[in-house]
This record gives sequence, C-alpha cells and structure tokens, in this order.
Amino acid sequence: MSAIPRNQWYVAAYGTEIGRDLFARTICGEPILFWRTESGTVTANSDRCVHRRFPLSQAPSRLVGDQVVCGYHGFTYGPDGKCVAVPGQARVPRTARLTPYPVVEQDSFVWVWIGDPALADPARIPRAPYLDSADYTTVCGLEPLRARFSLLVDNLLDLSHETYLHGGYIGTPEVADTPISTEVDDDAGIVYVSRHMDDAECPPFYAKSTGLAGRISRWQDIEYTPPCLYKLHSRIAPVGSVPNPDGTDPDAFHVEVVYAITPETEHSTHDFWAVARDFALDDHEVSEFLAENNRTVVLQDVEALNVLEQVVQTEPPGYQELSINIDTGGLAARRMLARMAGQTPRNAPAERTR
Amino acid sequence: MSAIPRNQWYVAAYGTEIGRDLFARTICGEPILFWRTESGTVTANSDRCVHRRFPLSQAPSRLVGDQVVCGYHGFTYGPDGKCVAVPGQARVPRTARLTPYPVVEQDSFVWVWIGDPALADPARIPRAPYLDSADYTTVCGLEPLRARFSLLVDNLLDLSHETYLHGGYIGTPEVADTPISTEVDDDAGIVYVSRHMDDAECPPFYAKSTGLAGRISRWQDIEYTPPCLYKLHSRIAPVGSVPNPDGTDPDAFHVEVVYAITPETEHSTHDFWAVARDFALDDHEVSEFLAENNRTVVLQDVEALNVLEQVVQTEPPGYQELSINIDTGGLAARRMLARMAGQTPRNAPAERTR
Amino acid sequence: MSAIPRNQWYVAAYGTEIGRDLFARTICGEPILFWRTESGTVTANSDRCVHRRFPLSQAPSRLVGDQVVCGYHGFTYGPDGKCVAVPGQARVPRTARLTPYPVVEQDSFVWVWIGDPALADPARIPRAPYLDSADYTTVCGLEPLRARFSLLVDNLLDLSHETYLHGGYIGTPEVADTPISTEVDDDAGIVYVSRHMDDAECPPFYAKSTGLAGRISRWQDIEYTPPCLYKLHSRIAPVGSVPNPDGTDPDAFHVEVVYAITPETEHSTHDFWAVARDFALDDHEVSEFLAENNRTVVLQDVEALNVLEQVVQTEPPGYQELSINIDTGGLAARRMLARMAGQTPRNAPAERTR
Repeated sequence: MSAIPRNQWYVAAYGTEIGRDLFARTICGEPILFWRTESGTVTANSDRCVHRRFPLSQAPSRLVGDQVVCGYHGFTYGPDGKCVAVPGQARVPRTARLTPYPVVEQDSFVWVWIGDPALADPARIPRAPYLDSADYTTVCGLEPLRARFSLLVDNLLDLSHETYLHGGYIGTPEVADTPISTEVDDDAGIVYVSRHMDDAECPPFYAKSTGLAGRISRWQDIEYTPPCLYKLHSRIAPVGSVPNPDGTDPDAFHVEVVYAITPETEHSTHDFWAVARDFALDDHEVSEFLAENNRTVVLQDVEALNVLEQVVQTEPPGYQELSINIDTGGLAARRMLARMAGQTPRNAPAERTR
Repeated sequence: MSAIPRNQWYVAAYGTEIGRDLFARTICGEPILFWRTESGTVTANSDRCVHRRFPLSQAPSRLVGDQVVCGYHGFTYGPDGKCVAVPGQARVPRTARLTPYPVVEQDSFVWVWIGDPALADPARIPRAPYLDSADYTTVCGLEPLRARFSLLVDNLLDLSHETYLHGGYIGTPEVADTPISTEVDDDAGIVYVSRHMDDAECPPFYAKSTGLAGRISRWQDIEYTPPCLYKLHSRIAPVGSVPNPDGTDPDAFHVEVVYAITPETEHSTHDFWAVARDFALDDHEVSEFLAENNRTVVLQDVEALNVLEQVVQTEPPGYQELSINIDTGGLAARRMLARMAGQTPRNAPAERTR
Repeated sequence: MSAIPRNQWYVAAYGTEIGRDLFARTICGEPILFWRTESGTVTANSDRCVHRRFPLSQAPSRLVGDQVVCGYHGFTYGPDGKCVAVPGQARVPRTARLTPYPVVEQDSFVWVWIGDPALADPARIPRAPYLDSADYTTVCGLEPLRARFSLLVDNLLDLSHETYLHGGYIGTPEVADTPISTEVDDDAGIVYVSRHMDDAECPPFYAKSTGLAGRISRWQDIEYTPPCLYKLHSRIAPVGSVPNPDGTDPDAFHVEVVYAITPETEHSTHDFWAVARDFALDDHEVSEFLAENNRTVVLQDVEALNVLEQVVQTEPPGYQELSINIDTGGLAARRMLARMAGQTPRNAPAERTR
C-alpha cells in the first residue's frame, strides 16, 4: 500500500522553472507536463499522449503557441488538456483529453493537487509568504533525494542531528543537548517542535551571515504542515535579548528555512529548500554564503538519507526502531502522515522516556 | 504469460554475421550458440554446456574444427549438439546433448525455429528475395531495441508517425494526412496496410537517392507476416505516373524496406532493417546515403520506443489507449499476434471512427 | 528459502584489515561493524544504530577511544554494543544495544558466528595454521564475487576445470585426465577429494616457484569443511619421489592453497584466497610471482562464476544439470551444505557413471 497521501497539495516546481519550454516532473508517481501559456499561466496535465502514451515532454514533441504537439503521431492538445487535432481524420474523438491537474502558483512555488480534483481547495494550501516578500531575501534550491519522503520528514523534525551530521555548518553541542517541546494541532494539521537555546555557541552559518560574535540566543521553531510544507522559524540574537511585547524584535536576526517535501515515487523525493532572511537584504556575499552553505547541509542530509533508504530496503521484516524524547515531533508527524495515507503508522516506538 | 509467439520462425542473424567464430544471440529468451561448420553450414544449439551450464560462447570456450569445447571443464560437442568427450572418463553419458534448433539460411537471413522442432516447416518461412537478388542493391543493419517487440510492430504498422518522428528524413505532411486502407488475410497470416499519395512532397530520403525533383506520387504498401517479417513496398514516381497494365513500371523507383522483428526477451528486441532498391545499383554514394539515412530513422524509432517501454512498465494497471483510423493495421496485427501467443489482445481501442 | 547455512562460523576478514578505523562488511546478509579496541581485541556488532538504523560505519560516524558515535544523532556505543549515551536526555534506554557477534581471531582470519550466539563454540572453527606459521610464507587476497557461494564451492571441489579455465597458469592436460577419489566424513563434516598425478607436466605456477624442470609428481588433496574453509594440500615433487614412512618429505615442495568462502548475500560472495609455501621462504620474487599468478587464476574463476550466476538467475525453472565422475566431491559438498541450510540439495545428478 502506498505511503504517499493523496488528495493533497504538493509543490511541483519553483515558478521560475516553468516557462515556454515543455517541462516534466513526476509527482507522487504521476508524470506531469507543465508549461506556461502565452498569457503567463502555468498549466499541468498528464505527460502521456492518449493515443500511444508517448510522453509529451519528450522531443520531438513541441509547444506551438498554446498547444502541445505529440512528437510521435501529432496528436495536439490545448492548455486544458483537450485534444484539438489527430492525424489522418478531421474528427477528434470526444474522449481524447489529457488528465488536467489543479495547479496554483503561490509563494514562488507551483503547487499541484494529487488526487480527486473535485476535492481541490486552493485555500488549503499552506503559506510561506517570506519566499515572495520584499521584506526578505531568499536563496533556494532543489536536490534529488533517492529516499522515501518520510525519511526526510524524520530528519527535519528532529534537529538534534545538526550537532552530528552538520557539525561545522549549523550544528553545535547545544542543539543535541537542549530538550524540545512538541505540540500537535490535529485540527489545523500542524506539528510544532520548539527548541530554545538561551546561551549557545554560534555556528558558522549564522556567525558569518549575521556578523554576531560570541555566544547567542538561538531559537528553532518548527511548523510542519504534512505532507509537504516544512518551515523552521529561526531566531538568532545576542544572549539575553527577547522580542518586545508588541512582537517587534529589533536586536534579532530572523531566518525562515523552508522545505517542500514532495514524493517523486515511493522511494524518491524532490527536496526543495529555501532560506529567507530579514537582514542584509542586498548583500550578495551573504546570499552566496547562505546558498552555498545551506546546499552543503542539504547534501549532507541527502547523502545520509540515500544510505538510509538502502538500509530500509534491505532490512529484515519486523525491524524495530528505538525512539526517545527527541523523536516526539517526528513520531507525531508519522502518525499524521499515516492517517492521511490511510495507513497505520510504521514502527511504533519501542521505548520512550518523558 | 509470455507475449512472444512460439512455434514460429524468427530471424536470428544475417548470414554474414556467422562464420568460424562462436556466435551467441538470445532469441525469444533462449540463448543460442551459432557457428558455421568447415563445410559452410550454419549450426544452432543451446548456448549452455549440459554439465554446469557454462555458456559455450564464453571464452575460453573455443571452436576446434567442427566441435566446440567448453571453457570450464572441457565438455566437447559436435555441430548436431551431441557430446563427444567429457573430462576424466572415456564414457560419454548418452543424454549429454545440447538442444539443437532448426535453422535455415535464406534471403540473407539466418532463420531459427523457436518451439517444438517437430512442427518446423521451412516452407512456411516468409520470403524477402530482394535482399539476395542481383536486381537489387541492399543496405542493412541491426539495432538493439530495449523495448518489447509489439511496440516496434505498432510503430511500423502506422507510418503516420513518419511526419512527426522522422520529419526531415522520410516524413512529410502528406503521410499523416492521407487515409490508409487495411486488409487482413487470416488464412495467409498477413496484414496489408496501404497509403497512396498521388501528389506529395518528396522527402530527402527519396529526393537524394532517386534524383527526382518536385512533387511525387508516393505509394506505401505494407505487407506484414507476423510475428517476424515486415515489408514496406515503397513506390516513388513523378506525379501522374502509374504502372503499366503488364506490371512493368519503368518511370518509378522501387524501394523494398524490410524489417525483421525478433524478440530478444519479453522487453527487448533485435531490430533488423534492410533497404533494397532497384535503381542506381552500383552507385556507392546512394548506398552510403541510404544506409546512413535509414539508420538515423531507425535510431529515432529506437529512442522513442525505449522511452515508451519505460512508460509501459511504470504505468498503472488498467491503462487505456485511444485508437483512431490510423491504427487499424496495428490493431489487426496485435490481434493476430495475441492469437499466436495464446493471449487476448491488449488494449482494445477505446474509440474508433471509420 | 535461504541457501546459506546459519549457526556456522564464517571468515569475515583478515585480521590485518581491522584496526582503529571503523570497518564494515556484510556477512550472510548481515551488516556487521568491526573495530579493534585500544587493547587490540576485535569487536563485532550489528552495523545499525538502534535509533534510526544509520550505519555506524558510515561517516560522520566515528570511533572515539573504545566507543563508536553515530554520525546521525550521536547515539554512542561501547565495544560490547551497549549504548552509553543518547542526545537530549541523561537516561539511556536499557534496551539500547547493538547486536554483538561472537568473534575469534585465528590463523590470520577474523571469524564471526552467524546464528544463535548460544550455540557458538570456538573449538569448532576449522584450522589453517600454515597461514600464521613461521614455517610457511603466505601470500593472500580477497576478491568480490558477484555469484552465490555454492558456485565457488562447485568450482573448487572439481579441479578438472584447471585444464580449461586456467591453462597456462595451473592447468595441464593431466588434471582433467586423472580420475579422483572422494571421501566424505559426515561426523567431522569434511569432504576429501584427491587426485594424484605421478607423471605430469609442470605448470608455470609451480615450475617458476619451485625451480623444478621437466615432469613432476603432482598431488592435489582437497579438504573442505563446509561451509567456509577449503584447503588444497598441494605436493609437487620430482617424478618417483614419495614421502618417507615417517612423514618427512624432503624432496617435495608443499603448497597449502586455502580459500575461505563467505556468503555476502544470497548472490554474492567474499572470495578469500591464500597460498602458503614451505620453500623459498624469504624469496620476495617467488612471493610476488605466486601472489600475482594466483590472483590471476582467482580472477579467471570470478569472471566465469559471475557469468554463471547470471545464467542461473535467468534459466527456466526445472533446469537439469548433468553430472559425471569429476563431480562426486562437489555433489557431496552440496548435500552437506543443503543439510546445514535445512534444504534438499538442488539438481540431483541426471546421470552418473562410477
């Protein structure tokens, strides 16, 4: 049975990836064709000609105005997927239509709905407004992950791994040492995990980008909306600084680390990552440093999770993990994802201490 | 269940491929060893030593006179597959014999019979005499196709794809636009598909080889004898020219395009192709041009079909194709192949217009 | 059902391979982590962190003193596999322990017990004392084999293949021509196969290492203790020379060829090989020659067996091998291995002549 929840919105691409060239990406096992019409709208249809299922993204298929022409036998489709021409006959069969996907461009992402289109409600798409806001500067990327998406969810919900896997970049001893608090909002469908370090070493990632010297107050507030959108609200400030009662926070640096976790197949994932900051907005060196540094961190995760995927695939049935306090958020996320996918959660914790 | 018909003749090789070196090719999933005896006869036997199934085509196995010696333990076999020597003992077990295959060399091809040898009737091998005739000059080749053979059958039975996949080589708008006529001879086991274009653009393939300038009369008469032999009788002539009542046709150029479609496995195919012409017989430039051009066209098909094979292998169960008029010949071929393989045909057309 | 016997000792490594770096090897499908403690003892534990199964051999996991620290979240383990520290909390769950493996270092090998640790009896480990003796000089190596271990057992139990697969190295016509005698000691769990050639060509392997010119007396006495340890006692002497009644054998050269045959998975094998000699003990040129020559011979086997593995994996069900006299030892070994694995032996011989 699939571990991938259907009837959900998923990030398929950055808006900047889709233009006037045919663009294909597999989302939740479904091959989808994208292009931007001459008026600028993103279209999403199944990437298979209805005739002999040739991929419409495959050369010599091509975009002509607002229509795609199949490179095998010339079946031609409009942006809504409707077939408008076939070879050798004037009549176009009325059932000749690509499956269209509900699609919304928002917060720099292109979201598609996987599942029953009748259930698609754009208002339910979670937001990440920083990525598209003049008050922030954002660097971003996309890495292919040859691992099931749940391994990336586990990874991001438990940041104690920063200390070990990302030492020298974003990890310091305090991350693993500081207890977390977890909150699950089942109605809103959100898992919150917070770790506030009041007196911590400043890792290079933040020292070089903020210019802060010495020890810091470092807050990590995770807000994960399963299945796709993960936000880490990161606050870096001098030790002792706290936000004002009115919410302003002039002494602090804020970084919004956003991941879109999109299953490509049951065993591979599109790992979208973005880092938005509210300081040094025009400083290209800071942008380059954060882009390079965060990509390195993402690739450390990718390498580890690619290994884990192989481990999971070859492990004997009935294998039991052992969970501890740090896993509370990840286990809550697993339960929510399993419910969404109509499954029972894998690997209930063998032992937990509270 | 296998989609490959058994109790059928298949082209295993060009006669020129088989000489005094051990030669192996997998036909319909069966690994077969070929060599030519000192007297010039082609032999065909299973490519597995009866002892520990070492491939007899694998070094250091070797041909000694008219016998093959296994490179692992020295079991030795004659051209009829009978074992004549084993190591360490004088007595050769009487059951020690390679499985021999009925084999016929004809029309430049080496044909083997896959199935029950008692049913093998050489008179049933379909003919392509042009390939071996002094009245024609032939260029030919063989491309490995990582796709099931039925995808190549589909491809060749519906030439409307020439317009899209082979534009600039053999495709012009008229091919896709001109309706076909289809005829099925169930007794003879032949599918005929004809497309006669009376006033068509001359594609480079024919313009450069015939020297015809301007528009042409172009006839495509397909004669497919499932499972293996496909012949396209191609007639190119000035507009208005027709053959004489006595069958002579002095103003026209005739090209016989022959494909032998031989399954290697369930998901890969030997794509033999040959182009025989009745003009410019000694013109090496024309030969080189046709060989190079046709190989390019074949490789365009191979690339497209390799992609399609991946598509078919990953598509969800119950996927439905949509067929139209151009598919009439291909669908007839599928029905015939399914009957030969003891199957029901896949994907009955969802809608057809007549 | 697995063909790999459990509750058995297997060679996991040469002792020289394991030091103060984390070392991983998969034995019988089980990923095992090795390191040598500061006091010099080899440890063996499962190579999976109990928390999220990250391989402890995978960077950035690292050895700190006598403890291994997981590179993902910092779980820390002692040499006995017991977890001594976890992140974010002081209490270590009592069930947090790697699975330890019984391990013995002996005769230059590191042996591990695969199966129920309660049954592990170090006294049952078969011996190869030459490999670690001052009276012998040994060259050795390890080649990865992408074939099931039983194909290597077949190979080594029937040396008639030397004549064909290893001609020019260790094979001469006499090996295949000379009958063998086989003896099975079911109580001790040993298969003996002997071939004594009293007047044989001297192959380059022995001619160049011993300096013997002309024909020789060549004895091959195989002693195989399934599943793992294979010893070939090889005696090379001038024609007519025999050992003295007291066991001394001053005119002969003795070579102990040892293989440890360790399944990595159901379809891959660690092929350990060693050549110990009782002559030219300090002659580096002889050592280099024998190492290079034997490695070439091993790689000839590896190439052939890798091919055979592919053959076996693609052959139709019910395939029957044909066995003859030379296979008596191999068939006895198969029966013993099948009994150890709780199986019925594969491919009973179709015909045997005695």
